[in-house]
Amino acid sequence: MVFIDACFRKKTPYTPIWMMRQAGRYLPEYMQVRNKAGDFLTLCKNPQMAAEVTLQPVEILDVDAAILFSDILVIPLEMGMELRFEKGEGPVFNRPVQNWKDLDSLYEFPEERLGYVYETIKIVREKLPKDKALIGFSGAPWTLATYMVEGRGSKTYATIKKLIYTQPDFMHALMIKITEAIKAYLIKQIEAGVNAVQIFDSWASALEKEKFFEFSWEYLVDIAEFIKERYPGIPVILFPKGIAGYLDDIYGTFDVFGVDWGTPIDLAKAKLGSRYVLQGNMEPTRLYSKEATKEGVEKIIATMGAKPGHIFNLGHGMLPDLPVENAKYLVELVHDLSRR
Amino acid sequence: MVFIDACFRKKTPYTPIWMMRQAGRYLPEYMQVRNKAGDFLTLCKNPQMAAEVTLQPVEILDVDAAILFSDILVIPLEMGMELRFEKGEGPVFNRPVQNWKDLDSLYEFPEERLGYVYETIKIVREKLPKDKALIGFSGAPWTLATYMVEGRGSKTYATIKKLIYTQPDFMHALMIKITEAIKAYLIKQIEAGVNAVQIFDSWASALEKEKFFEFSWEYLVDIAEFIKERYPGIPVILFPKGIAGYLDDIYGTFDVFGVDWGTPIDLAKAKLGSRYVLQGNMEPTRLYSKEATKEGVEKIIATMGAKPGHIFNLGHGMLPDLPVENAKYLVELVHDLSRR
Repeated sequence: MVFIDACFRKKTPYTPIWMMRQAGRYLPEYMQVRNKAGDFLTLCKNPQMAAEVTLQPVEILDVDAAILFSDILVIPLEMGMELRFEKGEGPVFNRPVQNWKDLDSLYEFPEERLGYVYETIKIVREKLPKDKALIGFSGAPWTLATYMVEGRGSKTYATIKKLIYTQPDFMHALMIKITEAIKAYLIKQIEAGVNAVQIFDSWASALEKEKFFEFSWEYLVDIAEFIKERYPGIPVILFPKGIAGYLDDIYGTFDVFGVDWGTPIDLAKAKLGSRYVLQGNMEPTRLYSKEATKEGVEKIIATMGAKPGHIFNLGHGMLPDLPVENAKYLVELVHDLSRR
Repeated sequence: MVFIDACFRKKTPYTPIWMMRQAGRYLPEYMQVRNKAGDFLTLCKNPQMAAEVTLQPVEILDVDAAILFSDILVIPLEMGMELRFEKGEGPVFNRPVQNWKDLDSLYEFPEERLGYVYETIKIVREKLPKDKALIGFSGAPWTLATYMVEGRGSKTYATIKKLIYTQPDFMHALMIKITEAIKAYLIKQIEAGVNAVQIFDSWASALEKEKFFEFSWEYLVDIAEFIKERYPGIPVILFPKGIAGYLDDIYGTFDVFGVDWGTPIDLAKAKLGSRYVLQGNMEPTRLYSKEATKEGVEKIIATMGAKPGHIFNLGHGMLPDLPVENAKYLVELVHDLSRR
């Protein structure tokens, strides 16, 4: 698989590409399944339908990898936290985890309850062409913790940060519990058939440098090294969003570093390119315009394309109103320009 | 004034400190005036009351500078855009600016209608001790544009970014109009008596590097240089939030660079410290804990305190539930530790 080879810095005929949130609302085919499912969680929990939307972008756009369709919050959900999606607000946990009692009440083995995910993986891997990779994923411990503690999206993360600065022991206990669950969950995804795993730390940028390394990165590396020891053939991709200022201190054993669009790719290359394969990082809103897309691709390929060590991606997820036509154009362009 | 001397890298007896959003909800004295005023905009428009809350932090915390109490959105408001503050959502413009017709309908000289701000400044400057500075401010063109175009706070800035990539001419015309208004507004603030000005680019991080320099920084530097030519004795502070990855390309004539908490202060020092005085950057939520505050202050003073060239501040605004007692402790600590 071109994608897997690229993760291991092997020579590939062209730069592989996939897009974060490539199975999403911008695709009419996705919306059909989504509407049939009714609500979002039902879609996540239905292996047939989840597999169908996982496969769509490979069929429609010819990307080099599918990514499992699911949600990062299935872990806290299956730890017993009641989850609902509020229109215009996003996910809400009615009873956030804010003290030792809340923490003790969480079920420790959510991976046992996530059979619908492994079932989805099996269906997808069966139907997916052999040369296309299937990426499994999880939210990062820190990002999951923000939702679990705040109860909903937050601008300031004041509740969880107050805990970090006033009750670090409690916070570490929470992080450990989440981390152990993620390890078990990703191992089960691998056993079900994914070819690579990505861990999304979407709210990495909510932490100052010192606390990022203490409460986020340490746990990410712990998970990555746990997986690499057991499955060295499975590439591990870490994507901590918005930490351009912290690159000097990145460490650990993993394969691919996901670069968000706020981290200039030449900066990431200079700081990390010799140690990790880089994945990224076109500004997703460039896809509103073909010209802007072309300009973005050319710049990234010019910086990264000459040698192995790059996987093309957006620097963040697809937006619901981006034109499918431009996404197709992007995939073709990346394949074409990197083939030369 | 210690603060002004520090802005010009002169030797001062200690490191001066003020806090972004120091006149705010965490102060019971502020809440009293705020409740008397009724709504937020009424408070901004009432010079007596706005002056009162501007002065409070100097009296209560002994910070080295007061910052004018106002809102960045008074410029679009006085350009004729109807503004309301929605509970739990923040500012909303009913009719955002999204095309040439909308742009033409904006009143070009909002600074003429902002007499209440200049009146506030006069009252404050009269009552403020002579050794304390008064900082005037404005939102940055880009940050104001995000509100004017999106109509409300946004997670993705999809509307304005679509315009950037598809209609750059329109966007530049909008930026120029806002920029000219800010220039005139800041000059009038200076003529009314402020001793320094800060321009807040709160949403700088919404732009990828290339577009940040094209649509934000260029205009910030234009304003800064316009002011420095006319009032070289007035320090200009620029605060583009969240652009740790773009520091290599920062240029222009201004005095102080505001460092947010996501930009490690040692990184900012290495990249910019020889050219600009640095202001910042303690994580505001450290103020939940005295120990965390002490640790934060010691680290920043150890990095920045030995030579002139630093003004202490938070790396973002005060939060409503931070303890006043800890804010007082912070001010004392910075003065004490930097005096040695």
